[in-house]
Amino acid sequence: MDNPPAPCRSTVSDALVGEALDTLSPALAETGAEIDRLLNELLAVPADSRDRLYEAMRHAAIGGGKRLRPLLVLATCDLFHVDRRRALRVGLAVECVHVYSLIHDDMPCMDDDDLRRGRPTVHKAWDEATAILAGDSLHALAFEVLADEATHEDPFVRAELVAELARAAGPSGMAGGQMMDLRAEEMALDLAAVTRLQQLKTGALIGFCLEAGAIMGRVPPEGRTPLRGYARDVGLAFQIADDLLDAEGEESKTGKRVGKDRTAGKETFVSLLGSERARQQAEALVEQAAVHLQAFGAEADLLRAIARFAVERDH
Amino acid sequence: MDNPPAPCRSTVSDALVGEALDTLSPALAETGAEIDRLLNELLAVPADSRDRLYEAMRHAAIGGGKRLRPLLVLATCDLFHVDRRRALRVGLAVECVHVYSLIHDDMPCMDDDDLRRGRPTVHKAWDEATAILAGDSLHALAFEVLADEATHEDPFVRAELVAELARAAGPSGMAGGQMMDLRAEEMALDLAAVTRLQQLKTGALIGFCLEAGAIMGRVPPEGRTPLRGYARDVGLAFQIADDLLDAEGEESKTGKRVGKDRTAGKETFVSLLGSERARQQAEALVEQAAVHLQAFGAEADLLRAIARFAVERDH
Repeated sequence: MDNPPAPCRSTVSDALVGEALDTLSPALAETGAEIDRLLNELLAVPADSRDRLYEAMRHAAIGGGKRLRPLLVLATCDLFHVDRRRALRVGLAVECVHVYSLIHDDMPCMDDDDLRRGRPTVHKAWDEATAILAGDSLHALAFEVLADEATHEDPFVRAELVAELARAAGPSGMAGGQMMDLRAEEMALDLAAVTRLQQLKTGALIGFCLEAGAIMGRVPPEGRTPLRGYARDVGLAFQIADDLLDAEGEESKTGKRVGKDRTAGKETFVSLLGSERARQQAEALVEQAAVHLQAFGAEADLLRAIARFAVERDH
Repeated sequence: MDNPPAPCRSTVSDALVGEALDTLSPALAETGAEIDRLLNELLAVPADSRDRLYEAMRHAAIGGGKRLRPLLVLATCDLFHVDRRRALRVGLAVECVHVYSLIHDDMPCMDDDDLRRGRPTVHKAWDEATAILAGDSLHALAFEVLADEATHEDPFVRAELVAELARAAGPSGMAGGQMMDLRAEEMALDLAAVTRLQQLKTGALIGFCLEAGAIMGRVPPEGRTPLRGYARDVGLAFQIADDLLDAEGEESKTGKRVGKDRTAGKETFVSLLGSERARQQAEALVEQAAVHLQAFGAEADLLRAIARFAVERDH
């Protein structure tokens, strides 16, 4: 497909969005359907007063979301010819952690959002207590899924995955980044501080996706450097794109409130660099991510397409 | 020590409290100090804006609480001569889950408590967002601790512990019980329903403590029946004692608000059975718990003392 430069793009090039989506659409749709099927089995609604808890978990987790993290796990596992059913369980676990963090993050005391993926957030559809418990339950479920024999026959692999996800989700990873983000309104962050914040807040979980693929593929730690480099670059590019969407995107496409960062007075990549330089930086990161994958040849094409999609999406 | 019946006890027999505490005090104090030492190492406050998150985790987790769950793990591990340092790490993990659940449970949208263990709750000392993130962080930390090699050299044991704790904490365990408890105000529960609710809300985590000791001790599932029986009985006895303390205890001793259940219009063992029958039921459960331990002889004396303490405490 021809891809002319668009000198005056309002958000991102429609042509590029089209190209990345053409490659990824079938993969994203297939992954989404498989994740939904697994969630549907795991979250069968019980015939007692826990029904509200399960309904809330289903509302938040099933049938929405880009499923970018599960696709990253699958694409990495593909490099090492890991059984797809097993890779999907790891993708499910990281998606459970991602969704739990969104539920808690949307609450009034955090980001106070009424809308997520085009639907009411859990605390709006039910109440805050239900949102806390639904998040907590998805958090526990992620580890239950990873520790199960169905995820890998070797308990060493299962224990490694659990340790890695717990680190990525906890105070030295995602939760730590969320605390930094909460406090970003109090202090004037510079570019280095925003980068560090985002490496924890969104980067740690994206890093887990690649690391998990390497663990499932029996790649020893010293062989994981290119995958970690890719994850770091894609994680930052993804966050810059998120900042651009918050600054310039449309609520009808993102399915969530936009313009939040400016309202909150938070420094972001866009506020610090300006839109045009932020966009260039994201593009540079995507190219750098591809460089890390050179040794993998054509087998890494899906990871390359994901990197492009991370910055060229409109939602 | 002589132990005369006290026909007109206001809460529980002071003599019995004394006896159980005499046996347990050194063990509880030692366990508490060891858990605090581990938490102190794990929760070193970082020199960045995550400091508030770590301070909040430390406030909630260090230097308070009965440490009954870690002691249950240690006492069970003792039966099977498990290395104490390893048993302590499992005790630490279950205490992290317990403390996270208290932080979330104390929030305004849940039980709305200002006081816990005689100190301001996390959302009072800081704010609700910090309480959510501190709870989430302790939740992740529990699994990080279990999955670490330092907990057991055999990854099969680590993966088993993770699977068991995730089940006990998630929607089919503690979090599910909390949802049932939330909804208990809407519906008139009978004794069977209150028992089921409490088996999930507090029983599942107590069950984990015994199960974890058996896993660490390499007891095959078919050999765990007596320990599971003990856990079930002690868990219920513990909850009945909690209901009695809520109905009749003193805030100065419990370190938390009392009389909550009546105010909320919730059915409890005390509201359904009356104080005297509830107390008799707790006593009967403690005796039944001891019966399960017969095969273990004197080595199970600590577990017997914990069962007595569960119902004879004043806090």
